[in-house]
Amino acid sequence: MKTQLNWQVGHTADRTQPPTEFVPATVPGAVQLDWARAHGWPQPEYDPDVTKYAWMEDVFWLYRAPLVFDLAAGERLFFVCKGVDYQFEIRLNGEILHEQEGMFTPVELDLTESAKTGDVLEVLVFPAPKSCATPVDRNQANQSCKPTVSYEWDFHPRLIPLGIWDETVLETRPAAHIRFAEVMYEFNADLSQVTVHLTAGFANPMGQPLRWRLLAPSQAEVIREVETVDADVISVNATLAAPVLWWPNGQGEPARYTSIIELLDHAGHVVQTQTQMIGFRQVKLVMHPTQWQEKEVVQFPKGRHTSPITLQINGRAIFAKGSNWVTPTMFPGTLTKAFYREQLQLAKDANMNIVRCWGGANVQKEAFFELCDELGLMVWQEFPLACNRYEGTPEYLQVLDQESKSIIRRLRQHPSVLLWCGGNELFNNWSKMTDQDLALRLLNRNCYDLDPNTPFLMTSPSMGMAHGGYFFRRADGAEVYQYFAQSHATAYTEFGVTAPANVEVLKKIIPEAELFPPKPGTQWQVRHAFKAWEPHSWLDLPTIRDYFGEAHDLEQLVEWGQWLQSEGYKAIFEEARRQKPVCSMALNWCLNEPWPTAANNSLISWPTVPKPALQAVAQACRPALASARIPKFSWRADETFSCDVFLLNDAPMPVEGDIEVLLYVGGAVLALGEWDNARAEANQNAVGPTLRVVLPDVEPGEMRLAVRVENKPEWDSEYRLLLK
Amino acid sequence: MKTQLNWQVGHTADRTQPPTEFVPATVPGAVQLDWARAHGWPQPEYDPDVTKYAWMEDVFWLYRAPLVFDLAAGERLFFVCKGVDYQFEIRLNGEILHEQEGMFTPVELDLTESAKTGDVLEVLVFPAPKSCATPVDRNQANQSCKPTVSYEWDFHPRLIPLGIWDETVLETRPAAHIRFAEVMYEFNADLSQVTVHLTAGFANPMGQPLRWRLLAPSQAEVIREVETVDADVISVNATLAAPVLWWPNGQGEPARYTSIIELLDHAGHVVQTQTQMIGFRQVKLVMHPTQWQEKEVVQFPKGRHTSPITLQINGRAIFAKGSNWVTPTMFPGTLTKAFYREQLQLAKDANMNIVRCWGGANVQKEAFFELCDELGLMVWQEFPLACNRYEGTPEYLQVLDQESKSIIRRLRQHPSVLLWCGGNELFNNWSKMTDQDLALRLLNRNCYDLDPNTPFLMTSPSMGMAHGGYFFRRADGAEVYQYFAQSHATAYTEFGVTAPANVEVLKKIIPEAELFPPKPGTQWQVRHAFKAWEPHSWLDLPTIRDYFGEAHDLEQLVEWGQWLQSEGYKAIFEEARRQKPVCSMALNWCLNEPWPTAANNSLISWPTVPKPALQAVAQACRPALASARIPKFSWRADETFSCDVFLLNDAPMPVEGDIEVLLYVGGAVLALGEWDNARAEANQNAVGPTLRVVLPDVEPGEMRLAVRVENKPEWDSEYRLLLK
Repeated sequence: MKTQLNWQVGHTADRTQPPTEFVPATVPGAVQLDWARAHGWPQPEYDPDVTKYAWMEDVFWLYRAPLVFDLAAGERLFFVCKGVDYQFEIRLNGEILHEQEGMFTPVELDLTESAKTGDVLEVLVFPAPKSCATPVDRNQANQSCKPTVSYEWDFHPRLIPLGIWDETVLETRPAAHIRFAEVMYEFNADLSQVTVHLTAGFANPMGQPLRWRLLAPSQAEVIREVETVDADVISVNATLAAPVLWWPNGQGEPARYTSIIELLDHAGHVVQTQTQMIGFRQVKLVMHPTQWQEKEVVQFPKGRHTSPITLQINGRAIFAKGSNWVTPTMFPGTLTKAFYREQLQLAKDANMNIVRCWGGANVQKEAFFELCDELGLMVWQEFPLACNRYEGTPEYLQVLDQESKSIIRRLRQHPSVLLWCGGNELFNNWSKMTDQDLALRLLNRNCYDLDPNTPFLMTSPSMGMAHGGYFFRRADGAEVYQYFAQSHATAYTEFGVTAPANVEVLKKIIPEAELFPPKPGTQWQVRHAFKAWEPHSWLDLPTIRDYFGEAHDLEQLVEWGQWLQSEGYKAIFEEARRQKPVCSMALNWCLNEPWPTAANNSLISWPTVPKPALQAVAQACRPALASARIPKFSWRADETFSCDVFLLNDAPMPVEGDIEVLLYVGGAVLALGEWDNARAEANQNAVGPTLRVVLPDVEPGEMRLAVRVENKPEWDSEYRLLLK
Repeated sequence: MKTQLNWQVGHTADRTQPPTEFVPATVPGAVQLDWARAHGWPQPEYDPDVTKYAWMEDVFWLYRAPLVFDLAAGERLFFVCKGVDYQFEIRLNGEILHEQEGMFTPVELDLTESAKTGDVLEVLVFPAPKSCATPVDRNQANQSCKPTVSYEWDFHPRLIPLGIWDETVLETRPAAHIRFAEVMYEFNADLSQVTVHLTAGFANPMGQPLRWRLLAPSQAEVIREVETVDADVISVNATLAAPVLWWPNGQGEPARYTSIIELLDHAGHVVQTQTQMIGFRQVKLVMHPTQWQEKEVVQFPKGRHTSPITLQINGRAIFAKGSNWVTPTMFPGTLTKAFYREQLQLAKDANMNIVRCWGGANVQKEAFFELCDELGLMVWQEFPLACNRYEGTPEYLQVLDQESKSIIRRLRQHPSVLLWCGGNELFNNWSKMTDQDLALRLLNRNCYDLDPNTPFLMTSPSMGMAHGGYFFRRADGAEVYQYFAQSHATAYTEFGVTAPANVEVLKKIIPEAELFPPKPGTQWQVRHAFKAWEPHSWLDLPTIRDYFGEAHDLEQLVEWGQWLQSEGYKAIFEEARRQKPVCSMALNWCLNEPWPTAANNSLISWPTVPKPALQAVAQACRPALASARIPKFSWRADETFSCDVFLLNDAPMPVEGDIEVLLYVGGAVLALGEWDNARAEANQNAVGPTLRVVLPDVEPGEMRLAVRVENKPEWDSEYRLLLK
């Protein structure tokens, strides 16, 4: 039985002195939210000045709750806490029971002997970890496992959450109870059989029966074993023929089995039940079909071949398309399954099959991974390292070891979690880590020890892969149409095209007087439209101006910016797919954001407001589509327009059709040509003709390129371009 | 007290049946040598037909020896064996005491309770491991830790040694004795202090005193601690200020301390002593000074930067120059310290500071590493994986785990062993392994767990590095002068230029009738001069013919071939050094060879006969030298000869001088120019002028380029070229 505690929280500069003021605390949550609520501050997501939270980083926060419980004879009392952010100690009546650095390692304390009703349980949360006083930025997080994003990022204000951030309860259990249970499995060579291993641990086992049942996705019982619990840990093995496999979105059903273990008493009554959902799937990172023939490795002196990044699921190499899951909130403690579901459903509906859980942010709560399992969204999971040099000091390695083991043990049960990664951009010159860094060798070690069948990357980008760009037009003037067509990466694991938020979002975060025209020094800047990273990030006014001229009002500016974002994202996703099989992954930066931004690369404004680009990405990520490689965005009359036509297919069955290409310009419809009997094999693309037409001398304005498949309108594509 | 056993060995096809014939066995050694000796066969190194050994791969070999020993009261009897090649079981009077796969894991069996004088100890050696019956080549070793080279290589005949290959004795010990002792250490930040940790394990400790002393290189006692042995394992820590550091050849002295632990009895007498030589040194693989500014990572989409391969020893980045230690014998069991010393001294005298112990061959015996420690030769040590795809089956991973841990535990005590590598060319398309292979992740794990401060590479070449070429002239006609000048690798960890062996070596292995001219199908071919790898490897007659015409006799052919090898190796070593700091490593393929070859890339013919190229390499590897980058080998009259002049310096102090460049051609001496006040800082090069001269119309023949440093003849260089 689980009961919630009635928490209060207060702060103190001196850990030996109690706070002078306590306010009600929501657990899980964050101390900042409790304090703001109690003092009538605006909701921080809409607060024009979050610098008012700055002092909260550097004080101690003391949670306290009275214990109220009843124990039947033989029952045990546990304090069970899934996570406290970040360094903390737990005290009972002032006596320290537990000390810990690290928010991802759960705590379970047996209070049976030490606590009585009316006692006070306290959780003292230390100031946010900082390896240095200055610079006041992410560098301060380079000796801790505290996610760096809240130390300020180009889309996140400086605001470092602290406090009890995951489920925390008082729990009574019978004397003999299940402590943990985990089902692992291994396939035979052709995946026609799995051997399933149950390992379960018990407190005070008394020779009771344990019943283990495995239910198929159809709910049919396929395994039923009864064992006697006569040891602290017992193992049970069973084999299962012809398992129904878990497949990612677009490749099949994300089928899951249910493992149910029941501890019975000697009379045969169920005392305790634990369930685990299991998806049987095999994952490998494999070389793409031409990778062993790479040109640069043909002649001596020869180097090595590129690292593999093609995901092979259940023996099938697939194209991974999706997005970077940055952080959907500044306060991970507030995240709920319902909130996760809204965003993840949007990702699935956008035909994505993968999310990269970026190392700058929190490792998500359990509900996130349950939903990814359910929706068939693959998860690339990073450890909490990003854009820093994490020196391998003994102190840091000890915390990283503990935290990474906790993360792996929790997440390895999820079929969706099928790629571990050390962290973000660690081998780039703003981080300056290398393959030799002890932190990364430790992570490889822990992943190997605890989850060897899941691939491991030290960082992204790894060899062959690429990050960026983040603008429709690069500093040298190249547009996404050109610079991605010229690139030959094996995976584009971050790329962004920026846009302003929808008008209604902007009106919530920017005072009416500042709304138009956008200027630096206003809420536009606070909300990352200017100087977030470069002077014009993320609004990128110069590019909008160059293509379209001066906007007359906010609505026009937003329309133009979102037009570029939609077309830019479509261009990149489709170009990455056209580069299949050399390229096997395209993940835009980014899906979501932690608070409402005025402009960003995200597809969703906080909390769950899609930008038009989300629909454009959904189009570009359809399992099959007719696609055109377009040389550029902006055209002039009398120029020869050209495009290369493709039939892209990521689906596990062939597709075919008759394709025609039309250009709508200034009221005219120009037929560029046809591609009859286009056919793409399962999970392969087909390359069609290059078509050309001279542009007529008509009124400047929007120009639309349509690639149509006869009787298959669901494969049609349309591109919005500009005639100047 | 250690005593040798009196061994015999015989073979049997059926492991349950004893051999019908036993012959005297030399231990350590190899069953093949014992059999050949007993039957009057020729020494295998000079045998024209070693296919007569083929059947020996596939039978069981049974060693037997009677036990003869005296035990005083309380004494224990141990069978101590450092290695049996490859799978074996140990029996006493027919009863199995121990079973093992793997030649690098030592065995220690306490026979006190089970053996009496007159009993028979047997070691049953299994047939050579083969994962498949065909092809009859190195593929057969792809599921074992048996070194692949003996399954046939381009310089090694098919001949797979088996048997007891390392020191094996019967040992009596007092009841209470030292089981193991190891000293580890860690530096403070500026290396001004080391903390030294002794860990020692004991059998039957009885509270006796243990005395631990550390002697400085000067033999002065710098640590003396006395502890009471009251547990199975005890640890003692001590700190040492201003340690004298171990330096590789050319950078300082390979200073070593001596750790002496003495177990005393209660009367204070020494019962047992163990010593360990310790070299205090810090090793890191670091990025070269311009690596974080690499061009290809400047613009989005951006990849990662290259992996680091610059060895930084005691805080000083150094250029590693040396050779690939392949295998100096077909029978590693025969290797002795005296033999190792001869070859390693040649390497040191050639100004080398590193040897790469290639993964195709055996991990060497202890004496090898002791000598490398003593001589200041750094060791790049690979695990026994080479040019195969080692699938990570549970069976293979179990053996690899055991063997790699044994290797790491033995070698980590040596200051010379400062780079671990998973194996040879595993990421190339003849092996098809990748960063995701479990075997390599396991090796990373074990190196991290057991020796974290020593860098680890998964394979060679790793990212940025290169292997090859192996001929003076590449298939496309490019000479080493050109193709290395055009390359930009961070490390050249294999490159070869082939040559015939010296005339006296050839006369020992090739019948007089076949000696000249060399032809395929003769002993020239058996000895790798033809079709070893390509049709003309390793004699490369077409290249010799193209430059020099048809040789009149063997002596002329050898002179010409060795001329190309000498100049080729000089060109590559010096070019690699000129590319410093981007390049930081040059290791030629190879130093030695397992039997006398007719032609090979080696610098030493078996057993220890230097080719002239060894002296050329010694010249190119001098700490400081004046060097010329030469465009090509063969010139014509009236062509403009040119060269770029450099002052190369790998020494830890600056060098300077006045340089003049002269060309000796057809009796004339042409002065190309001078470079006054050339100065290269410590461990840095200096770039001088490009000098040109029109070649006179004189008799074709040898042409010599001399780069002279006034008053520093030890820095002079000379290059032998051709005027055609």
